[in-house]
Amino acid sequence: MVRTAIIQRIRDGRRGEEEPDAVAVEEPLEMRVEGRSIAVIMRTPGHDRELAAGFLLTEGVIKSAKDLFDITTCVAAAGAGKGNAVDAALARPEHADLDRLTRHVFTSSSCGVCSKATIESVIKRRKPLEDDVRVSASVLLALPRRLAAAQTDFKTTGGLHACALFDARGKLLAAREDVGRHNALDKLIGWALLERLTPLAGHLVLLSGRVSFEMMQKAHAAGIPVVAAISAPTSLAVEFARESGQTLAGFVRGKSLNLYAGAERVITRARGVRAAR
Amino acid sequence: MVRTAIIQRIRDGRRGEEEPDAVAVEEPLEMRVEGRSIAVIMRTPGHDRELAAGFLLTEGVIKSAKDLFDITTCVAAAGAGKGNAVDAALARPEHADLDRLTRHVFTSSSCGVCSKATIESVIKRRKPLEDDVRVSASVLLALPRRLAAAQTDFKTTGGLHACALFDARGKLLAAREDVGRHNALDKLIGWALLERLTPLAGHLVLLSGRVSFEMMQKAHAAGIPVVAAISAPTSLAVEFARESGQTLAGFVRGKSLNLYAGAERVITRARGVRAAR
Repeated sequence: MVRTAIIQRIRDGRRGEEEPDAVAVEEPLEMRVEGRSIAVIMRTPGHDRELAAGFLLTEGVIKSAKDLFDITTCVAAAGAGKGNAVDAALARPEHADLDRLTRHVFTSSSCGVCSKATIESVIKRRKPLEDDVRVSASVLLALPRRLAAAQTDFKTTGGLHACALFDARGKLLAAREDVGRHNALDKLIGWALLERLTPLAGHLVLLSGRVSFEMMQKAHAAGIPVVAAISAPTSLAVEFARESGQTLAGFVRGKSLNLYAGAERVITRARGVRAAR
Repeated sequence: MVRTAIIQRIRDGRRGEEEPDAVAVEEPLEMRVEGRSIAVIMRTPGHDRELAAGFLLTEGVIKSAKDLFDITTCVAAAGAGKGNAVDAALARPEHADLDRLTRHVFTSSSCGVCSKATIESVIKRRKPLEDDVRVSASVLLALPRRLAAAQTDFKTTGGLHACALFDARGKLLAAREDVGRHNALDKLIGWALLERLTPLAGHLVLLSGRVSFEMMQKAHAAGIPVVAAISAPTSLAVEFARESGQTLAGFVRGKSLNLYAGAERVITRARGVRAAR
């Protein structure tokens, strides 16, 4: 996930000799379904099968692990230079309308640009999650420490987004890093899907970065009821969380956090100046 | 750019009363060319005409300000709820192959997912910039302070990306913020395009976040020779900068910075233990 680049450092107005430095790797991955190219994702290499599985689930191409027959890695098209490809075989390809599938993937991007022709079709509302899991505030506050302990390459490069999946008691199940935060989440969810853990009822996810509505939508597609983030959510992420029955905690730092939605799932101590509700 | 959400803060295990907090606004913008919907962008409202102009330039739909007749804001499709639309009129619409245009925009996303069928077509190499501007290292080191002074809403929400355009002496020309970092850069470049300042030969841009290859590609499309960032670049951003003749400085913090590409444009003092080269 890390590559060495030869750089020059300037410190206090002085230019040093050339020296090696670690940078996060970004390379294209060609995504195929039944042998057909449907998208290219700029990602950090590694966990490509998980990325493909997670992408297909969170973008709605498949509904569960049952819809997936297999994902194989293959060599990208000739002339592509670097880069790899993954090919997803579906359980019932005869049921898949690949024209529709292609359009679907074409029209859902992980980042803010998509080609859907109307706004209404972008903000697709889904069925609210009904999940009566309860989580202690102290568990939420402990998550960033656990993610940091699991993160390896961020420390080296400063250039990777991370996320991690926990059970309701805060036990870390898996963590993933990527130059793209949507990819990191897709890899994490793809891991869970390939482990047959989806839908992730009763689970928590912690995000290292900011929370856009698309991150909430991906978590929702995987059935994750509680999303915590070290940084800020957007207004639409908050709205989406409220409408979709998700708990959204932001600015989870040190001894404090902000609850933007689904506060009823978070348990605080009864004692203290203000009573818990 | 900021909206108030009612949140609950948990501090030291205690839950506070509900209180208002500022969150960065994220809303969809429908982008039209000659009345035809080509994309929806999740963005922070404001500077929408600039966003549209910058997007069209950096994604290669138009080549210069001359190709653009006008950009008007209009009401989004019925039933869309919130959200707006912008419509770009081209100078010579009869020359625009709108089918091709639509495919083009469909196939270029601002974030890592695109629907181009081959990797080769994603990483489009462009003509290297030939720009003999020279920039003092002390000018680069001063940029973050100037961006911070110009940023307003980040301080409130912690949820916005920012970028700013400077001349070679470090004079700030414009700054833009958005929930999406690609949008912030497109708004900045769109501002320059509408001011008839593009191509931006001899200019510097500072990015608040990480630098992916797409950010370098956008800067290149606007003719910007020097990209500085407070955070880390990816491996492909470094490669792209080297091949495209751009200067790329990362980790511009305090009194130091790292030069990943185009080091010859950066001037350091001749004195010091090590001679400048």
